[in-house]
Amino acid sequence: MTIKNAFYAQSGGVTAVINATACGVIQAARQHPNKIGTVYAGRNGILGALREELIDTNQYSDEDIAALRHTPAGAFGSCRFKLRSIEESRAEYERLIEVFKAHDIGYFFYNGGNDSQDTAHKVSQISETMGYPIQCIGIPKTVDNDLPITDFCPGFGSVAKYVAVSIKEASLDIASMCESSTKVFIMEVMGRHAGWIAAAGALAQQEEGDAPHIILFPEVAFDKEKFLSKVKHCVETYGYCSIVASEGTHTGDGSFLAASEASVDAFGHAQLGGVAPVLANLIKGELGYKYHWALADYLQRSARHIASKTDVDLAYQAGEKAIEYALEGLNSVMPAIQRLDNGEWGFIPAPLKDIANVERFMPKSFISEDGFGITQAGRDYLLPLIQGEDYPPYVNGQPVYVKLAHNLTPKKLANFDI
Amino acid sequence: MTIKNAFYAQSGGVTAVINATACGVIQAARQHPNKIGTVYAGRNGILGALREELIDTNQYSDEDIAALRHTPAGAFGSCRFKLRSIEESRAEYERLIEVFKAHDIGYFFYNGGNDSQDTAHKVSQISETMGYPIQCIGIPKTVDNDLPITDFCPGFGSVAKYVAVSIKEASLDIASMCESSTKVFIMEVMGRHAGWIAAAGALAQQEEGDAPHIILFPEVAFDKEKFLSKVKHCVETYGYCSIVASEGTHTGDGSFLAASEASVDAFGHAQLGGVAPVLANLIKGELGYKYHWALADYLQRSARHIASKTDVDLAYQAGEKAIEYALEGLNSVMPAIQRLDNGEWGFIPAPLKDIANVERFMPKSFISEDGFGITQAGRDYLLPLIQGEDYPPYVNGQPVYVKLAHNLTPKKLANFDI
Repeated sequence: MTIKNAFYAQSGGVTAVINATACGVIQAARQHPNKIGTVYAGRNGILGALREELIDTNQYSDEDIAALRHTPAGAFGSCRFKLRSIEESRAEYERLIEVFKAHDIGYFFYNGGNDSQDTAHKVSQISETMGYPIQCIGIPKTVDNDLPITDFCPGFGSVAKYVAVSIKEASLDIASMCESSTKVFIMEVMGRHAGWIAAAGALAQQEEGDAPHIILFPEVAFDKEKFLSKVKHCVETYGYCSIVASEGTHTGDGSFLAASEASVDAFGHAQLGGVAPVLANLIKGELGYKYHWALADYLQRSARHIASKTDVDLAYQAGEKAIEYALEGLNSVMPAIQRLDNGEWGFIPAPLKDIANVERFMPKSFISEDGFGITQAGRDYLLPLIQGEDYPPYVNGQPVYVKLAHNLTPKKLANFDI
Repeated sequence: MTIKNAFYAQSGGVTAVINATACGVIQAARQHPNKIGTVYAGRNGILGALREELIDTNQYSDEDIAALRHTPAGAFGSCRFKLRSIEESRAEYERLIEVFKAHDIGYFFYNGGNDSQDTAHKVSQISETMGYPIQCIGIPKTVDNDLPITDFCPGFGSVAKYVAVSIKEASLDIASMCESSTKVFIMEVMGRHAGWIAAAGALAQQEEGDAPHIILFPEVAFDKEKFLSKVKHCVETYGYCSIVASEGTHTGDGSFLAASEASVDAFGHAQLGGVAPVLANLIKGELGYKYHWALADYLQRSARHIASKTDVDLAYQAGEKAIEYALEGLNSVMPAIQRLDNGEWGFIPAPLKDIANVERFMPKSFISEDGFGITQAGRDYLLPLIQGEDYPPYVNGQPVYVKLAHNLTPKKLANFDI
C-alpha cells in the first residue's frame, strides 16, 4: 500500500461534537503513517478543496488535536455549498481532481448531514466516472438526526440532552412562579421538517404530569383549538403549562406558524421568525395567561458544556471508523451507527447512494395518540442517546476550547472561480 | 433563650441557587434544636404566611434537604406580591402577627431581591410598631445583581457563568459558518434596568477580537448608526459579529427596543422580551447580513447544570449566615457578601433599611468608552463570580433534582382574604 494524503472537511450546520469526529479522524490517521500521509483539512468544507485552501493538520500538536474532542463547532470552518452533479458541473469535479492530484490526496472524508452525504456520494463517483482513484467516506453529523440507516446522527445526542435538561430546569422555574405569575413557558427548538429535537424534551418527564406537557412536532399539523384546550387543561390541572415547540410547527395547509404573524418592527422591517412568540401571543390572547418563552437557536447545537457522553464517544468513533474503512479499501460508504442488543454500539459501512438525499422522519409510532407527546417506543429510542456526561476542562471558570489557526498549505494551482 | 419556630420563604423570580440558600437555612437551623424549633417554609413566599399555608420542613429527610443544594428554582414556590406599608394595609400585618402567634414563629427569613427586601424590611418593623417580637432577616437572591451593599447577589454568579459559556459556544458556531452563511448572532439576556447579566458575556473574551463583539446595556442609550457601523466593522474584520443584548436595551428617549408586546406584572414592571429579533431585522434590513438569534429567558436563570460553584457556595452560606444572625439576636438585617483581599469571601449584616428599594446599577467605570463592552475593572469584578463548577448528580443521563411535596401544616385560623 502506497502512502496517500487525506482530505477531511466539515459541512453544513455544526454541532457540539463534530470536532470530536475530526479528532477521531486525525488521531486514527496519525497511527498509520505508513498508509496515510498528511491529513489536510478543508477550510470551510468542500470549498477548501475547490479553492485549494488546505490546512495541513500536522501543524497542530497532539494536545491541540486531543482538545478537539471537547471543543464545539467546526474548527476548520464549515459551509453550506452543494455540489451539482458531474453532468451539470464537470468543471468543479475536474478542479477537485486537479487539487487532489496536486496534493497527492487519495482519501476524502466528508463530515455532514443530508446535503453533505450527497456531496460525498458525488465525489465518490470520481473514481469510476473520471478515472482518478479516490476513496470517499462520508461521516455522519447532524443535530437534525435525519440521516437514514445510522441509528442516530452524532450531534443529535447532545442537542437532545441539552433540550431535556433545559426544559426540565425551566419547568421547575415556572412551577415555582405559577401561582401568582407566569403560567405558560414555551421553548422553541430546531427541527424544520423532523421533530427529533423537540421529542427529546419529553425525556424530562419522569412521572405523570411532569413537564413538558406539550410538544409540537412538524409531523403533526397544528390544531389551534386542540392546542389551546390542552394548555388550559394543563394550567388548571398542574398550575402551569410547559411547552417544547419545533421551529417547523405548521398548520394543516403546510404554512409555518412562525411566518404567520409577520409584523413590522420599530425600524420598519418585517419581523419574522419565532414560533414561540406566535404561540405565546395566541395563548395570551385566547386564554389570558401570562407567559415566558425562550428560543434556543445556536445555543442548543453548540452546548458542548452539557454534551452527551454517548454522543461524544460515537462522534469520535465515527471518525476512527472512517479511517478504518479507508484503510480497508472501501469507497462510497458512511460508518452507520448500530444499536446492539447488549446496550453497546457498533458500526456498519452504509452505501452513500442509500443515504444521499434520503431524509428520515420520526416514525409515527414515536408520537403519542394526542400528538402532543412521545410513546414508550420513542422514549426507548431516545433515552440511550443522552447517557453520560462529558464535561470539557475549565480554567478560570470557563471551558477551555481550542482554536486552531488556519495556516494554509502553499497553493500549487491557479485560482478557480466557484 | 426560648425555642421559637422559624418562617422561611422564597420570593420573586427564582434562580439556579435559591434552593441552595434554603438548604443552608434549614441545615443550619437543624443544628440548633434548642433555639430554633420547626422551620416552616411559606408556600409561595409571603402569601404562605398571609394564607397560613405553612410547610413543616421536618417532613423532609436530611437527604432531601441536602438535595436542595443542587436543585434549581424555588422548591417551596415563590410569588410576586409586594406588601404595602403598615399605614396602608394594617390588616395584612395584623394577619401576619396572628399567623406568627398561632405557630409560635419568632424568626422570619425572606429570600429575594429588591421588592422582597422591602417586604422583609416592613415585616421587621412589626416588633417596633406593633409589639410582636420577631427577628427578621432578609437573604439576598436575584439574578439581576442589583441589591446594594452586598458584593453580588446569589443567583447572579450562575447566570453570569451561563451567559459567558453560552455566548462562547454559540460564537464558535457562527465563526464556523460565517464564510458562506450566518454572519451575525444575537443572544438576548435578562436585565431590564441594569446590564450586569449582559456584561457577563464579556467574560467569554480572552483575546483581542474574541466574541462577543458587542454588548448592549440598558445603561447606554441605543444609537442605531453607531451600532450598525460596529456590526459592519466586526463582520468585515472578524468575518462575523456576535452580540449580547440586554432585554432592557432602549433608545435615548427611554423607549425599549422590545416594547411592542409590553404587559405589566404584579409589581408594575413592564414584561419585556424580544429585543433580539428587532436588532436582527434592523441588521438584515440595513446591512443585509444573514442572522440567527437566541432568547435565553428562563433557561439562563434556571441553568443549575452549569452553575458557578462560587455562587452556589455563597448562596448556601448566606442561608447559614441568616440563621447565625438570628441566633445572635439581630433584626432587620441581611447577610451581605464581602469580597476579601485574600480572594476569600465574608459576610456583614447590612441594615434592611439601606437595602429595601435601592437599585444598584452597574458603575459607569465598568462600561468601555464606546459603550459596547466592559473595562478591566468590570472584568475584575465579574470574573471571581463564575469560578468553579458544581455539577448536580446525574442518573440516566439527566440531572436529579428533588421535588418536595407541599404538605401543609393544619391551619389554626380562619381564612384571610388577600
